[in-house]
Amino acid sequence: MCGFIGIIKLNGKDVAEELVTGLLSIQHRGQDSSGIITSDRSRFHIKKNAGLVSNVFSKSDVKSLKGNVGIGHVRYSTIGFDIENDSQPFFVNYPFGIALAHNGNIANYEEIRSSLEKESHRQLTSRCDAELILNVFADEMSRTSGDFSIGKVFDSLGPLMKKLNGSYSAVAIINGHGLLAFRDPNGLRPMIFGKNDSGFIFASETVVLNLLDYTYIRDVKPGEAIFIDNNGKIHSKIIDAREKTPCMFEWVYFARPDSTIEGRSVYDVRLRLGEELAKRWDKDVDVVIPVPDTSRTAAMGFAKAIGAEYREGLIKNRYVGRTFIMPAQKKRDNAVKLKLNPITSEIKGKKIALVDDSIVRGTTSKRLVSLLRKYGAKEIHLVVTCPPIKYPCFYGIDIATRKELIASDKSVEEIRKFLGADSITYQTIEGLKRAIGMNSICTACLTGNYPTNISETDISRFEKIREEERSRVV
Amino acid sequence: MCGFIGIIKLNGKDVAEELVTGLLSIQHRGQDSSGIITSDRSRFHIKKNAGLVSNVFSKSDVKSLKGNVGIGHVRYSTIGFDIENDSQPFFVNYPFGIALAHNGNIANYEEIRSSLEKESHRQLTSRCDAELILNVFADEMSRTSGDFSIGKVFDSLGPLMKKLNGSYSAVAIINGHGLLAFRDPNGLRPMIFGKNDSGFIFASETVVLNLLDYTYIRDVKPGEAIFIDNNGKIHSKIIDAREKTPCMFEWVYFARPDSTIEGRSVYDVRLRLGEELAKRWDKDVDVVIPVPDTSRTAAMGFAKAIGAEYREGLIKNRYVGRTFIMPAQKKRDNAVKLKLNPITSEIKGKKIALVDDSIVRGTTSKRLVSLLRKYGAKEIHLVVTCPPIKYPCFYGIDIATRKELIASDKSVEEIRKFLGADSITYQTIEGLKRAIGMNSICTACLTGNYPTNISETDISRFEKIREEERSRVV
Amino acid sequence: MCGFIGIIKLNGKDVAEELVTGLLSIQHRGQDSSGIITSDRSRFHIKKNAGLVSNVFSKSDVKSLKGNVGIGHVRYSTIGFDIENDSQPFFVNYPFGIALAHNGNIANYEEIRSSLEKESHRQLTSRCDAELILNVFADEMSRTSGDFSIGKVFDSLGPLMKKLNGSYSAVAIINGHGLLAFRDPNGLRPMIFGKNDSGFIFASETVVLNLLDYTYIRDVKPGEAIFIDNNGKIHSKIIDAREKTPCMFEWVYFARPDSTIEGRSVYDVRLRLGEELAKRWDKDVDVVIPVPDTSRTAAMGFAKAIGAEYREGLIKNRYVGRTFIMPAQKKRDNAVKLKLNPITSEIKGKKIALVDDSIVRGTTSKRLVSLLRKYGAKEIHLVVTCPPIKYPCFYGIDIATRKELIASDKSVEEIRKFLGADSITYQTIEGLKRAIGMNSICTACLTGNYPTNISETDISRFEKIREEERSRVV
Amino acid sequence: MCGFIGIIKLNGKDVAEELVTGLLSIQHRGQDSSGIITSDRSRFHIKKNAGLVSNVFSKSDVKSLKGNVGIGHVRYSTIGFDIENDSQPFFVNYPFGIALAHNGNIANYEEIRSSLEKESHRQLTSRCDAELILNVFADEMSRTSGDFSIGKVFDSLGPLMKKLNGSYSAVAIINGHGLLAFRDPNGLRPMIFGKNDSGFIFASETVVLNLLDYTYIRDVKPGEAIFIDNNGKIHSKIIDAREKTPCMFEWVYFARPDSTIEGRSVYDVRLRLGEELAKRWDKDVDVVIPVPDTSRTAAMGFAKAIGAEYREGLIKNRYVGRTFIMPAQKKRDNAVKLKLNPITSEIKGKKIALVDDSIVRGTTSKRLVSLLRKYGAKEIHLVVTCPPIKYPCFYGIDIATRKELIASDKSVEEIRKFLGADSITYQTIEGLKRAIGMNSICTACLTGNYPTNISETDISRFEKIREEERSRVV
Repeated sequence: MCGFIGIIKLNGKDVAEELVTGLLSIQHRGQDSSGIITSDRSRFHIKKNAGLVSNVFSKSDVKSLKGNVGIGHVRYSTIGFDIENDSQPFFVNYPFGIALAHNGNIANYEEIRSSLEKESHRQLTSRCDAELILNVFADEMSRTSGDFSIGKVFDSLGPLMKKLNGSYSAVAIINGHGLLAFRDPNGLRPMIFGKNDSGFIFASETVVLNLLDYTYIRDVKPGEAIFIDNNGKIHSKIIDAREKTPCMFEWVYFARPDSTIEGRSVYDVRLRLGEELAKRWDKDVDVVIPVPDTSRTAAMGFAKAIGAEYREGLIKNRYVGRTFIMPAQKKRDNAVKLKLNPITSEIKGKKIALVDDSIVRGTTSKRLVSLLRKYGAKEIHLVVTCPPIKYPCFYGIDIATRKELIASDKSVEEIRKFLGADSITYQTIEGLKRAIGMNSICTACLTGNYPTNISETDISRFEKIREEERSRVV
Repeated sequence: MCGFIGIIKLNGKDVAEELVTGLLSIQHRGQDSSGIITSDRSRFHIKKNAGLVSNVFSKSDVKSLKGNVGIGHVRYSTIGFDIENDSQPFFVNYPFGIALAHNGNIANYEEIRSSLEKESHRQLTSRCDAELILNVFADEMSRTSGDFSIGKVFDSLGPLMKKLNGSYSAVAIINGHGLLAFRDPNGLRPMIFGKNDSGFIFASETVVLNLLDYTYIRDVKPGEAIFIDNNGKIHSKIIDAREKTPCMFEWVYFARPDSTIEGRSVYDVRLRLGEELAKRWDKDVDVVIPVPDTSRTAAMGFAKAIGAEYREGLIKNRYVGRTFIMPAQKKRDNAVKLKLNPITSEIKGKKIALVDDSIVRGTTSKRLVSLLRKYGAKEIHLVVTCPPIKYPCFYGIDIATRKELIASDKSVEEIRKFLGADSITYQTIEGLKRAIGMNSICTACLTGNYPTNISETDISRFEKIREEERSRVV
Repeated sequence: MCGFIGIIKLNGKDVAEELVTGLLSIQHRGQDSSGIITSDRSRFHIKKNAGLVSNVFSKSDVKSLKGNVGIGHVRYSTIGFDIENDSQPFFVNYPFGIALAHNGNIANYEEIRSSLEKESHRQLTSRCDAELILNVFADEMSRTSGDFSIGKVFDSLGPLMKKLNGSYSAVAIINGHGLLAFRDPNGLRPMIFGKNDSGFIFASETVVLNLLDYTYIRDVKPGEAIFIDNNGKIHSKIIDAREKTPCMFEWVYFARPDSTIEGRSVYDVRLRLGEELAKRWDKDVDVVIPVPDTSRTAAMGFAKAIGAEYREGLIKNRYVGRTFIMPAQKKRDNAVKLKLNPITSEIKGKKIALVDDSIVRGTTSKRLVSLLRKYGAKEIHLVVTCPPIKYPCFYGIDIATRKELIASDKSVEEIRKFLGADSITYQTIEGLKRAIGMNSICTACLTGNYPTNISETDISRFEKIREEERSRVV
Repeated sequence: MCGFIGIIKLNGKDVAEELVTGLLSIQHRGQDSSGIITSDRSRFHIKKNAGLVSNVFSKSDVKSLKGNVGIGHVRYSTIGFDIENDSQPFFVNYPFGIALAHNGNIANYEEIRSSLEKESHRQLTSRCDAELILNVFADEMSRTSGDFSIGKVFDSLGPLMKKLNGSYSAVAIINGHGLLAFRDPNGLRPMIFGKNDSGFIFASETVVLNLLDYTYIRDVKPGEAIFIDNNGKIHSKIIDAREKTPCMFEWVYFARPDSTIEGRSVYDVRLRLGEELAKRWDKDVDVVIPVPDTSRTAAMGFAKAIGAEYREGLIKNRYVGRTFIMPAQKKRDNAVKLKLNPITSEIKGKKIALVDDSIVRGTTSKRLVSLLRKYGAKEIHLVVTCPPIKYPCFYGIDIATRKELIASDKSVEEIRKFLGADSITYQTIEGLKRAIGMNSICTACLTGNYPTNISETDISRFEKIREEERSRVV
């Protein structure tokens, strides 16, 4: 869960201002650290730190980040540990000077790291997989000595894509030569390609292009690499394409509704997610209430389709960060109320369809149901735009171990009981596919069918690592 | 535009934690500075600074803010000047030690200040009117020497209410004696009174009571003073009541929708504001789109009443603070896009009713209309839940000089032309009153009828001061 | 242990720059907090915070501290607790607006505070005695209503000096009227008075006058008050003079050597302190080594008088602050070495006279002696420029409880044994008086004869408070 | 002008605490940035930033800098530009993970950088020459693939020492393998080697060893490399030794007096510098006054030798940092007074020998002489422990372009006139050599004889670069 931008400007102007502005528009993808590296052809300029874009970059930073090529990144830290050291982008001096940022997750991180250490004698200085990808790339690039060539870049990405198991949409500066973008062979994480009169852009979401007045060209293809040289010439090649399986969670929850992914408007998909849920609906409710902000669009589609009132019965507090810790002695219910406060007139005595995008652990939903009961809700019917999440994600979404996933070992009826709802209606996988309008999407967290090669042993090991990491923090 | 809380706990526990948590829920009322003063009966503990609640108060601050009585404040700074010095609460050592915070504005600030200086030989150290009110109060309280008595408090508030022209909902600690709350004779700014087993609370909005598990008792009455002593006994007195004219802008724009003011749910009033607008509606539109976040509820009421689709066609960026300055060379349109980005599928080729809560200067609306045109809107009909704003506010809402108010010298048709909309439908004053369900409200900014004594000379002078202040900042 | 400055400029220029520069030159008197209040006649401008002068005041602070009258303060915090809240100067709104800073200590703080609370209904918000003095003064000033007059000021200081038992050299702004300075009836803490073409200055030390190009007029007299009005007229009056007993520790240790106190150059006094010690000297040493920085001058005087070599055998590390805490597992000796490192060639095989200004607890001296032994010193003879300290100080020097004073219950021979020195030569009280050139000085910490009325009960109570404070911190 | 430490501990304990404590003792070598990299064999842990050691490293940093091998650095920034980006240590991922810090300066920086870019396709991200040295080393190390071996390390240093023209005393971690130290073939900058029961240390000065309880083994030899492996085995080799010419300025000014360089105590050398000056002395003075802190020891030696009184007639202010900018309108004299204030009794009517370590631009000396005249000095005789500085330094001392060096084109008599002194006595080069006790030292800044190959063209180019850099800052 991260966001990136890469820009090359061919009109001689500096790129930093556009990067900072653009990062602001994808800050929802990560709030833990922010970073930018630019190149003025002769050297890199670097600024990265823990914190929001608006806190990390001062006016003087923007000035000193010189150069017409640059990459920027906002990071969501799964662990909240060593945030400064792990913040992207990363760079190496050799060959050529390469800086890289990405969105995704490398499933075989440990093996690759170990092989980098033992076989390639490369040592990583962080736990961030961007540094891993960068070093695999630099390792391949340095196997043949000699001058820079685009062939060398593409030739290096072949073995890289063979080795890396996971998701990665990466942008990279090759100092003095141009801007590179590449996407994993399954196209798991989004990557948008755009241009305007003064240059080219790659970004996690189309909103960046809108904001900065770039025109959308297309999504980068699975397994594709695109290199923009200093003359603005586009070099592209499919390095290693497998079945395209973009992550369905971008549409369901993660991306901004005003973005378009794989040609499908996130907003429109969410409307259809609501409509799909309506198809199997047979309850009678007074009001449809979304859990803000993400579920709003789906709830609207759902309400219209079932002919019920759409209402904003829960008010979200914008000022409660994820780091704010509610004092221990306070009842836990209050933590929910602080973030989501009910509108009495929309709750009291009402039969409510409560639309949420997904249920992961179930603890927040349970508290929310209980809160609505206290406010006098007559019936609470949970409507969930995502099918039950049963398996951990290896591709960059912070979906935890099976132990923590309520749907991993509970039936829908058991979940309903646990949450205290009157009914619970999950999206179906077919409905999800119809809503997105693609048959081939990644549904690994729903079905356990991982598009890349993930064994049961991998899952167990991953879960163990995750648990250890969490325990380290607490 | 500020928010305050006052709490006295009678179970011997410290009050700081509740104050910090409560302030988080009214941070929307002011983001420039945050402050708390508590009293452990023997002395005050103080922490205030520029910044959000989550930045100003560390864990160790909460610990060191000892005492069972406390007041907290979040401040919106009209000017953005001298924020640290002007942050509330304020205190005086004599008599007894009094700390005070308020929401409101004193119209005759200059006269009172001058009289405090010349006649009472009191000197203020800030431009904040809370310090003014505090000193008027302290001045009256110290006219008679001797021990503390509740009679003395009430007797002091009589002359205070005579002198002060304006709005003020104030909470004050009288060190060692108890918690005081008082409200101006017109009840212009809101003030809620609540209790639970462990104590009493006063706050700007009911959401604070909800969150902290206090039961709503009633709104403090215009001109009323309530004093809670150390034994939890309530002493109340109407000091000086005139006609109750609460500020209509709290319902229209300022308060949270999940709050209730004067017994009227803000959410319900906003629904009715939409319904009122629908009554005079004769256009044919495809879709009703609110300008988020405030206009959402009214747009829903409006959409339902006219039988059109309610849609979230504009996406708000949460990460753009009011201090973020868009680089100069960027086209100004982008500043709007950065904050509000359109959903193409809801705009393109559509006849749109765009619901906004109010039009002040008109510059943002103009850019928004232009942006929607670029995204292909067929027709844009502006629907405004507040009647035209023509006069400056003297009571705490940051409504500028007439020169800056687009409706002060332009007809509705001229405004429409300026904004580039196809039509513009304003709320009527009658509709506003019906929606709120009160006949007597403050409509000074709409009609120029100020509930307290404000002459044309006062207005001109106020405008001159405001202009000077603004010029000082730029 | 604090430093203050008060300046009134009559040429219409702002005073802040001089205050900041001046405070830098007396930062040695206190490094815990720094503060300035200025008055532009209409209001106060305030900036104070924990930290060094160079950290607390930004360029923009200096700009916004407007006005031609101002007071500044640097503070040494005995306790290191609540530093922000306790930082000077303090102010009250009434009467006139008074801001005050001082150097000293009020021995009967608790009684005065209690009487302020009970009889005058005044409440303090800190533990800083500057706030106490300010409130006593404001209390007296407000006893008679009516306009400002200098008579009123002087009349108020009479009862103030009667009430306050202790030391205080205070500067105060009376807003709109002028700059006031007053000193306790015994003249315990220093206070210098100066002028130049553009105004007048009061300060803790003459170095401030040197630096800012003010000419020394004289020391303010014990019990004297001087008021400089807006026209630059000097009004002065002896309010309540008793025997003048300035604190001998200023010359011995606390003041800068380039300052002059009561007409006696600190540097010259220190030379004589060394010479006095030489009079009773009968040992044979190879080298005289000072403990830098304070003891340098006395060591030079001593070395010359006994005809031995003066050498800098200990090197002081400038970068180790008093807050730096040596890791626990490290041997404590290293903490001494980090601050004071020996020069082998001056120590090894040498008979050393080690000159220190004073021995309080004795722990540092013990470690230093042990360190020199390790470096091969043949003999170590301690020479102490201050006589044995046996009693706590009530007048502003951080001399702790008798329990912590090594000389309070040990003979010189016992001390020598404890420290591990070959001999120990203390200054005599007569020598001290001769070196300073005054017969009447405060020697309370040496003799227990307190120049103000301090009983054995007071001492015990003070020690108890101090112990409680210390335990609160640890 | 920088300081470094490298430590490897073989008792399984972390090294960070010792590094932080050690850096405190050499903070005088650089106050602009501080940094540490440690290795826990599996990865690097990094913390570096602009600021003093006491500000950069928090307790939690020390905890998270895990590992038994580490290097630390304090940096003096010639330019004060891009301090964060240029702060040491630097690291590369390949091969093995190498982190490096050094003290020195690379004279042919531009050529090497250019060759790294063009021939080796390496790109630097800073202007810091530590990154250059690191990349030259990594480049050589990666020429042969395969596992780590000590032969490889030594083989790589051969070409490195051939290429680099300049001074460098460098410590480096080779991740997982050990700690490396190497020194340029002329041994221009100091490097000390020590050990104790738990490990080995390299540092800029012996004070670090003293403080951390390591025993001095010897100075690292010119052109020598020493590698300590994980078992504590010492591998050393002379890679490329030329004539040893250590920088004389370490003894004259830069090192701490309690350090020993090349077996010569800095303190003792300074005493002798004074004695050497005395040999040619024929004036009659009342008092010898050092410019504190550096000149103290030499002044003592000088005073004793000429039989005059040594006195501390100038008091240094510890609280004025080099970043503090005196307000513009203040007379420049005050800037000197703020830093160095005279003791009247030692100046007035006196014939003074003023001992300073060196005269570079001469502006400070001029102001000081003028200040002493104002305080009534009868005669001022300048005594300078360093011979006239006429040429820029290429080896790490911030000695500027010839244009800025007063002695580059002025005779001693012209300098005397410019400074306004009664006489001026410079050290001779022979005296300097005798005082240090070595015939072969670097006297390039005095004679223009650069021990490495520096042509007139190099000097001119260097001067041009330096001037450009300075103009960029202003």
